[in-house]
Amino acid sequence: MPISLGELAAHFGCELIGDPDTLVKGVASLRSAGPDSLSFLSSSAYLAELPETRAAAVILRKQDAVNCPVNALLSEQPYATYARMAAVVCPEPVPTPGIHPSAVVSDSATIAATAHIAANVVVGEQVTIGENTVVGAGSVIGRECGVGSDCQLVANVTLVKRVRMGDRCIVHPGAVIGADGFGNAMTPEGWVKVPQLGGVSIGNDVEIGANTTIDCGAIGDTVIDDGVRLDNLVMIAHNVKVGAHTAMAAMTGIAGSTTIGKRCMFAGQGGSVGHVTICDDVVVAAKSFVSKDITEPGTYGASFPAENAKSWARQVARFRRLGSLIDRVKKLEQ
Amino acid sequence: MPISLGELAAHFGCELIGDPDTLVKGVASLRSAGPDSLSFLSSSAYLAELPETRAAAVILRKQDAVNCPVNALLSEQPYATYARMAAVVCPEPVPTPGIHPSAVVSDSATIAATAHIAANVVVGEQVTIGENTVVGAGSVIGRECGVGSDCQLVANVTLVKRVRMGDRCIVHPGAVIGADGFGNAMTPEGWVKVPQLGGVSIGNDVEIGANTTIDCGAIGDTVIDDGVRLDNLVMIAHNVKVGAHTAMAAMTGIAGSTTIGKRCMFAGQGGSVGHVTICDDVVVAAKSFVSKDITEPGTYGASFPAENAKSWARQVARFRRLGSLIDRVKKLEQ
Amino acid sequence: MPISLGELAAHFGCELIGDPDTLVKGVASLRSAGPDSLSFLSSSAYLAELPETRAAAVILRKQDAVNCPVNALLSEQPYATYARMAAVVCPEPVPTPGIHPSAVVSDSATIAATAHIAANVVVGEQVTIGENTVVGAGSVIGRECGVGSDCQLVANVTLVKRVRMGDRCIVHPGAVIGADGFGNAMTPEGWVKVPQLGGVSIGNDVEIGANTTIDCGAIGDTVIDDGVRLDNLVMIAHNVKVGAHTAMAAMTGIAGSTTIGKRCMFAGQGGSVGHVTICDDVVVAAKSFVSKDITEPGTYGASFPAENAKSWARQVARFRRLGSLIDRVKKLEQ
Repeated sequence: MPISLGELAAHFGCELIGDPDTLVKGVASLRSAGPDSLSFLSSSAYLAELPETRAAAVILRKQDAVNCPVNALLSEQPYATYARMAAVVCPEPVPTPGIHPSAVVSDSATIAATAHIAANVVVGEQVTIGENTVVGAGSVIGRECGVGSDCQLVANVTLVKRVRMGDRCIVHPGAVIGADGFGNAMTPEGWVKVPQLGGVSIGNDVEIGANTTIDCGAIGDTVIDDGVRLDNLVMIAHNVKVGAHTAMAAMTGIAGSTTIGKRCMFAGQGGSVGHVTICDDVVVAAKSFVSKDITEPGTYGASFPAENAKSWARQVARFRRLGSLIDRVKKLEQ
Repeated sequence: MPISLGELAAHFGCELIGDPDTLVKGVASLRSAGPDSLSFLSSSAYLAELPETRAAAVILRKQDAVNCPVNALLSEQPYATYARMAAVVCPEPVPTPGIHPSAVVSDSATIAATAHIAANVVVGEQVTIGENTVVGAGSVIGRECGVGSDCQLVANVTLVKRVRMGDRCIVHPGAVIGADGFGNAMTPEGWVKVPQLGGVSIGNDVEIGANTTIDCGAIGDTVIDDGVRLDNLVMIAHNVKVGAHTAMAAMTGIAGSTTIGKRCMFAGQGGSVGHVTICDDVVVAAKSFVSKDITEPGTYGASFPAENAKSWARQVARFRRLGSLIDRVKKLEQ
Repeated sequence: MPISLGELAAHFGCELIGDPDTLVKGVASLRSAGPDSLSFLSSSAYLAELPETRAAAVILRKQDAVNCPVNALLSEQPYATYARMAAVVCPEPVPTPGIHPSAVVSDSATIAATAHIAANVVVGEQVTIGENTVVGAGSVIGRECGVGSDCQLVANVTLVKRVRMGDRCIVHPGAVIGADGFGNAMTPEGWVKVPQLGGVSIGNDVEIGANTTIDCGAIGDTVIDDGVRLDNLVMIAHNVKVGAHTAMAAMTGIAGSTTIGKRCMFAGQGGSVGHVTICDDVVVAAKSFVSKDITEPGTYGASFPAENAKSWARQVARFRRLGSLIDRVKKLEQ
């Protein structure tokens, strides 16, 4: 949607240095931008690309404007401002309201008139779907689930049962929310399944990645608070509580009954054991897992990045000789 | 379903200390239980909550009964007894038999009269579905698969081909069973796909988590024995054999042709390399992977739990100086 | 399909030692092969099984033929030759062309006459599907996706949007390609979603495993080059580039904007951080992650295989005493 820099500046409260009538039609990186593209500079890593850019305008901090060869939109948060402007410049198509004839919807479900239920969706008993919410093709919404307004369940999403989701949530394909938690009681005859009788409670403005799984609680709910961001292939086990605005990168796994604070960040392939409490503002490094309560904000981790395999093998051999090394030092001390 | 404590005690062979006519209508934790809730005490971690509970009754070991302020159901396995009673007190709804008109079922498939084939299911050629089995909405059952009786394929499950499953199995949404294994032969021109011609053989009473994948064998079957429990996002590669009652927590990965014994337990995000044999009764700790045969029952692992990132960085620096430290000790010894 | 050894030898350019009229009807391992099975010997690990085999014929290297008790097909690449012959001996059924009546196909989509669109598939706007391509049951192909010829989307595959795929690709069930990347801008009020406006560009002869996710680019495309092999539950983040013939085993995760060379191999449960460049011909060991650019071909890794848990605990205790050990050595040196 072509939009003028003047309109963008006015709408988002930015100072514009340059021509308010220039139109932008798309977005691009500094390097690939053409004369109708909006670009941005949020990290000094890309500063060297600024003088060469051919963008229509660049969103940047005031101190970087001096090096900008084209129109500049000033923002103290250029990346967030870019995010908001890009959504206006490049809007995704909005499906028209209505229920596709191939969808199978329970008589006891309540679907808002402005909602879009796509092809081959199945909606179970006592489900409610809010205004403007899009349930994408192939999704299955099981019994007693409630989805708020302005949500997008992109496609092939499964809400199994008792999932209650707020407004403006996005769930990507293949995500499974509300499946039974992993509850098993050992007996001499083998495992006995422990019924998983809770639900999943999801706040507003939550985004859940592709093929991520969030299990229902065993007793009581698994809870995902407002503004949480989960990447793809994340696992949230039963009765976990994830605090507001916490973000987890791909392949993070949180075991059962763990409580995580607000604004935490988990890098990829790590996570936490079960039954621990992690306070607000904790960052967990890549491939690292939390094994006990964390009570102080800060960064935590424990992993070794890959190195040359032969050099690593030597390190491991030295590590295995630590016991004898300690003995040798003890002997020297005597 | 309201049920009296007397009935529960009689049906499950428990001693009841208290009023047999008290009715329970649901289950709850000790802390949140109200006067019509059944609760349980299986771990001493929750012992402090017992004296305050308002539950209708608590399932617990005999020695804990003295501290129980309400009715007590005595069991030497309180968690397993809770699991069995909860399934009676809070039964999940059972769908009615029949094939939904939107399901697409091959003429060559054999569906038991008591089975339920839900909306938008696709059933391929030469498939058999047993008595009382539920195939949930959106599931795809490919050719030559056989599902036993009393199974639940919850929703959006994919059995690709040649999957044979016993009775009373549960498969959660997004699970993919019988996809091609990762078989590739390197040539100077790139990878050549190795046809994956086996199937998957699954015993009775197996539970398979959401978005878990179990590949078909390359030649011969991948085998999952009776009573196995797989959590979400688990990967079982081609020709793996998982022994009876083995349990794997989320994100466990087992590489091809590995054989795992009975009653093993894998904590999350670990697993095993391919082509090894792991004996019965092995426990593998979180984030740990098996690299060679294990012939002795016991607990195995190798991981570092997350710690303060600065402290960890110092540890890694010391680790990297191990070689020079060993040299220095050698010099001192001379 | 019964086929004579003579035909196989001629078609694949192998020397046959034995009877050209012997028919093979299937494939089997050396140990389980019967008199109408084709088998192969590609690794010396199975050499001991060769003298006992009852196979119709064994594909093997010339130097192993002397120990072969049955017909021998000579090949310098026995595993690749087996792969190619097995595809002829055991062909998978090919669905008939056409669009199943239960499929929902946009009027603006272009489907080749020889393509097969299976039951309950949903095809969105401006999608193109090439000749002989099979879109399996329950798959959803979102707007502006293009799939080449001779591809197989096995079942329940989701191509979200702007995915362009070459010819002869295979995508296994549950894979999600083209979902939004994990782009979030932090603000004092919480995360702002960064629109993900790129697509996914996939070359020819690519195979993508079950429940694997490949996100669309933020700006510009995520790129998967020709001949790439991705196993199950792999995560490819936005704007990653994977070079031709690179293979990734299950649960590998590649974070955003990382560029990977040709013919690389990632073992399971490892991967790479974002924004790094990995050159051609790099092997990354199991459970290891790349944290910075790799410019030299070779094998890289850093992980500790599981060992007896008590022995590991002692090792960790020694590791934690490294600082004091270094101090003690320093003291001895003074």
